[in-house]
Amino acid sequence: MATPRSRVRDDESSSQRRTRPVATVAVPFPAVVARPIIAHVRPQIDCGRRPAKASLGDLLNVEADAFVEGHDLVCCELRFRHDDDVKWTSMPMRELGNDRWRAMMPIDRLGRYRFIVRASVDRFGTWRRDLRARINAGQDVAEEFLVGAQLIQDASRHAKANERRRLAEIAEMLRSSDAVASPRETTGDDASDAQHVVFSEWLGDAMSSLSGSSHHVSSETYFVWADPTKARFSTWYELFPRSAAPSPRRHGTFADVEARLDYVESMGFDVLYLPPIHPIGRSGRKGRDGAVTSGPDDPGSPWAIGSRDGGHTSIHPELGSLEDFRSLVRAAGARGIDVALDLAFQASPDHPWVSEHPGWFHQLPGGSIRYAENPPKRYEDIYPLNFEGLEWRALWHELLEVVRFWIAQGVTVFRVDNPHTKPFEFWEWLLASVRAERPEIIFLAEAFTRPRVMEHLAKIGFTQSYTYFSWRSSKWEIETYVRELTQTDMADYFRPNFWPNTPDILTSELQHGVRATFMARLVLAATLSASYGIYGPTFELQETAPRAEGSEEYLHSEKYEIRTWDVKDPSNLSGFISMVNAIRREHAALQFNDRLVLHPVDNDHLVAFSKTRAGVDHDDIVVVIVNVDYVYPQSGWVALDLQQLGIDPSLPYVMHDLLTDAHYVWNGSRNFVRLDPDGLPCHIFALEQPVEQWKKKP
Amino acid sequence: MATPRSRVRDDESSSQRRTRPVATVAVPFPAVVARPIIAHVRPQIDCGRRPAKASLGDLLNVEADAFVEGHDLVCCELRFRHDDDVKWTSMPMRELGNDRWRAMMPIDRLGRYRFIVRASVDRFGTWRRDLRARINAGQDVAEEFLVGAQLIQDASRHAKANERRRLAEIAEMLRSSDAVASPRETTGDDASDAQHVVFSEWLGDAMSSLSGSSHHVSSETYFVWADPTKARFSTWYELFPRSAAPSPRRHGTFADVEARLDYVESMGFDVLYLPPIHPIGRSGRKGRDGAVTSGPDDPGSPWAIGSRDGGHTSIHPELGSLEDFRSLVRAAGARGIDVALDLAFQASPDHPWVSEHPGWFHQLPGGSIRYAENPPKRYEDIYPLNFEGLEWRALWHELLEVVRFWIAQGVTVFRVDNPHTKPFEFWEWLLASVRAERPEIIFLAEAFTRPRVMEHLAKIGFTQSYTYFSWRSSKWEIETYVRELTQTDMADYFRPNFWPNTPDILTSELQHGVRATFMARLVLAATLSASYGIYGPTFELQETAPRAEGSEEYLHSEKYEIRTWDVKDPSNLSGFISMVNAIRREHAALQFNDRLVLHPVDNDHLVAFSKTRAGVDHDDIVVVIVNVDYVYPQSGWVALDLQQLGIDPSLPYVMHDLLTDAHYVWNGSRNFVRLDPDGLPCHIFALEQPVEQWKKKP
Repeated sequence: MATPRSRVRDDESSSQRRTRPVATVAVPFPAVVARPIIAHVRPQIDCGRRPAKASLGDLLNVEADAFVEGHDLVCCELRFRHDDDVKWTSMPMRELGNDRWRAMMPIDRLGRYRFIVRASVDRFGTWRRDLRARINAGQDVAEEFLVGAQLIQDASRHAKANERRRLAEIAEMLRSSDAVASPRETTGDDASDAQHVVFSEWLGDAMSSLSGSSHHVSSETYFVWADPTKARFSTWYELFPRSAAPSPRRHGTFADVEARLDYVESMGFDVLYLPPIHPIGRSGRKGRDGAVTSGPDDPGSPWAIGSRDGGHTSIHPELGSLEDFRSLVRAAGARGIDVALDLAFQASPDHPWVSEHPGWFHQLPGGSIRYAENPPKRYEDIYPLNFEGLEWRALWHELLEVVRFWIAQGVTVFRVDNPHTKPFEFWEWLLASVRAERPEIIFLAEAFTRPRVMEHLAKIGFTQSYTYFSWRSSKWEIETYVRELTQTDMADYFRPNFWPNTPDILTSELQHGVRATFMARLVLAATLSASYGIYGPTFELQETAPRAEGSEEYLHSEKYEIRTWDVKDPSNLSGFISMVNAIRREHAALQFNDRLVLHPVDNDHLVAFSKTRAGVDHDDIVVVIVNVDYVYPQSGWVALDLQQLGIDPSLPYVMHDLLTDAHYVWNGSRNFVRLDPDGLPCHIFALEQPVEQWKKKP
Repeated sequence: MATPRSRVRDDESSSQRRTRPVATVAVPFPAVVARPIIAHVRPQIDCGRRPAKASLGDLLNVEADAFVEGHDLVCCELRFRHDDDVKWTSMPMRELGNDRWRAMMPIDRLGRYRFIVRASVDRFGTWRRDLRARINAGQDVAEEFLVGAQLIQDASRHAKANERRRLAEIAEMLRSSDAVASPRETTGDDASDAQHVVFSEWLGDAMSSLSGSSHHVSSETYFVWADPTKARFSTWYELFPRSAAPSPRRHGTFADVEARLDYVESMGFDVLYLPPIHPIGRSGRKGRDGAVTSGPDDPGSPWAIGSRDGGHTSIHPELGSLEDFRSLVRAAGARGIDVALDLAFQASPDHPWVSEHPGWFHQLPGGSIRYAENPPKRYEDIYPLNFEGLEWRALWHELLEVVRFWIAQGVTVFRVDNPHTKPFEFWEWLLASVRAERPEIIFLAEAFTRPRVMEHLAKIGFTQSYTYFSWRSSKWEIETYVRELTQTDMADYFRPNFWPNTPDILTSELQHGVRATFMARLVLAATLSASYGIYGPTFELQETAPRAEGSEEYLHSEKYEIRTWDVKDPSNLSGFISMVNAIRREHAALQFNDRLVLHPVDNDHLVAFSKTRAGVDHDDIVVVIVNVDYVYPQSGWVALDLQQLGIDPSLPYVMHDLLTDAHYVWNGSRNFVRLDPDGLPCHIFALEQPVEQWKKKP
């Protein structure tokens, strides 16, 4: 039993409450009760502080959580615009389940896009869904029709005249007594006229277009930078121009490189990257195999940039003239090949900058300039630049001018040497400055360093990045790394470029490699990553000798001497490389990384993965299986994830080996494979369902 | 050969560049080149928009990536302050490897903390590291000493007089010619005096304290809300006061509940949660087992709040008076038990609000008020409130006053009924309003709904949350769910409260359960989660009968009728529960969720996991193994992850079963267990290394 006191106390407080002004509340009321919550929008880099990356022709997957309390339905739309657009474009997002929504944003111009996700409560849709449930349960819906009439009338205020008239008629109809006959079915012939109208598509569309103008909630604004297609899909070949001469020991020229374009084109490469082409310093010049002292005929490292012949905007005299270089760029361009230059922002002690701008370097107290070093190691042929010295603005500006100079010569792709040893702020500024003028320029970051540093360089604007692929040899290493690159948010900003070798990296695996090793590493690079490259002709000629045991340097490295290559040698892998690159061009699945799936094989030497691209009448599905044991044949059962591939597991399908043109009929998920390194160490399959099956698809 | 033209072109452009003003650069230079990057700070909820959760006594794990280009060393510190503090507190962060840094932030007051991570380049430390490498390599370091002298002199400007004098002396010493003798060792007796000073701890400390005042980079500011300890570690018991009478069919009172406190205390619970204690409406009252019509003696659902006897601040007359309630709160408090009330923000049609404030409800066009419903289901005994109606501000204020009223009666813990059916904005406002006055108040969200909605309620301020634990039965389900709760960012804001049963949830597993089922589900709840609760006495008396096949409702549910319970029944699990709760109190490891590790067992019916808490002389390690097959004995090999537990795998260790007091000596990772549901379906081990081993620890 309640005592009188209790009730009196309650009444007192209750009356006090009613007279107490609302202003006693310390925390202010929200301005409106704007109900949907939008969260976890992707792509989103560093909480939206940096743009995600996309490329021309992409359909960018934009997703968000959008939800509201209770059981009300939500509408969700993507709104986006390019910097050049005046108006926003809207497109509906589709619910994926679990309050997740998605839209595919078309990227059709270079430069910056912005997007927001917008959500609102779908009051009419909710009412209609509930009405259907009530009618189907045989409930009296007379009052519900009045509720609906009110919703329609409210919305009609925002409608154009014709539509407003029609909506008013419908609202009136719902208010009339005829409307309320309540058969158990909402659609059949016995449904009332009012029900036919209420559940009509016209009314649904009209109401949802009108509701857009009422309360909605918007996400933050996020940005996307659209690069050219080659930013996503590119095939790189690196060569030293000075070794391009056909005859032994002559210094190669741009004309020699031009003569080699047919060879590069025949292999299917579309970027030709040249190490620095500038005058090479004499002071501290390294000898062969990196010797501390050099002989008079040693050409020195191309990265020791600058001599009395000039610096970063000059050309090493023995390579030819600027006009020769332009001719090479033009000839390459005619073949669809971009010539990529190396941006190595450092100087030989003989660089003109050293005397003209000593303040651009690290000056020691005694007045001398600090060599490049990683104590106690010293690189006497190179002075690093001081990006934080008193004259940093002039230096940065000069470096921007260097980039502008080469862009003016037709260069659109740059490989950036060791960006991780220069300030992030510098790159962010430089890349933004270049892109403000020329959004199509591509920068590949050559940063082999700690993961967070490599990631950050990609975030601040590098188009592509070298990776750890070179050292990922075992199945576990390859799978773990590829998962990290493609299934974390790295996929939104870090575009991997896989290199089996570089002039600095002859891996232990390649040193001990056989022909199958080179074939398999090439196929892994070319199919795991939409962008990859090789340093040739060392790669296709399968150079394996290191400078010393335990070193990753090549013996007789082109970094320090001129080599001559016999690309006509019958052991050359160029034919195989041509095939692989042709497959890349023909199969869109290999030109993206976003739908890479790793498939289990019951053999730790066999790596299996697929890539998929949606097509007009069927998906392009490429399945790659590689034997990473380069000595022994390996066999096992591949368990394809048919659900992820969208394949009906009850029907057989054809695996078309694109390297051998063989066709295999596979059944279900598990199928047997055997790969012998004496033959081909890999399959590159196109998964082709029989035509009958495609017809069955809706 | 370079043509003259090429060189001329370069010279031209080069001279043009030098005369062109820097202002032609479109993208502005950064203000300073502030080098370290700080990223991925945790805890961080929705990009810092919401506070993370902590509780009194925590050492909150704050982490961040901090790194700089190149090879320079970085210093990283955590700075934090409570809202009541005037000054920030700083503490150094420790590098974990891979550019990740950590500090443990002590939480010793209720309310809001803020923190930032601050990083700077450690120029002196970098110089000293490089100097050591140079000296060890036998290089001439004369000029390096001059560089160091300059660093020391620059820093000395910020020093106090004494320190400044000493630093000036050191700089002078380094500049003197004596300093440059360069033995190969930096520490031995033959190191020079200058070297002794350079590598001295005093100088390192002085330089690092002075460098703090120079360039540093700060993260965004992040917030942490500190709750009382019970927010993290709590043990809940729910009972219906009206069923608390010892004699059959009499309506229980607060005095009866008070008499049952000894029982509740003996089992070791510290929160006693009562379903709504307010007057119950008559209109639409549900009968027994939720029947649509009720007889005159049916008491109705306590959630149908409000009658002529009052509403949310009144007490159901048959339970007693407000003074009786206060007495119960005091008596419970004396035992360390908090009485938790139910905030069910809805009304019976007889609630005073209905006549006084019809605008607080959903009014239909005909003037009537909409019942609670989930079409076509209807709940005729309940009117939902309209949180978005024209009078929403007055309604919200009234609801805040309800909470304030009960806080004034001594209530500090609330269980909130169905928060997911009210706007998020309302809860965010209400919880912030209450916490602004009383930061110690605890709110448990009873939202059994979609994952994103449950997560968002936790983000906007609910202290604890009901979970899906009730339905996670198999080993795979349990492990997957626990991983999600403890190993994603949910751990930073979502505090799970595990309930094996509630008045609404008699799971299929319990319906078919035996004694071992109840024991195992209790142990899983009590050890997987630092907060858990049971709905009693149904639980400890092992009620299994559902209202109907396929229903999760209890037969003869207390929601609709008064029950009488014989807690002295010999089958009562209260003794077992007492033991489990005593173990929870004695083992700090079980009072946190942050160091939960799942361990493999080669039997899918055996779940094994551990929790660890660092102690003064040894870690508290609890290992729990549960047989989730409640019919058959199950055995298998547990593979403890000894590295994660910090156990030397080469030494035996003692597993002390805290339920049976048995001691087992285990060796290495893999050990055999067998659990028979006829006896105990679980082990709760304390992992106790022999004393000799603890002595060996550093």
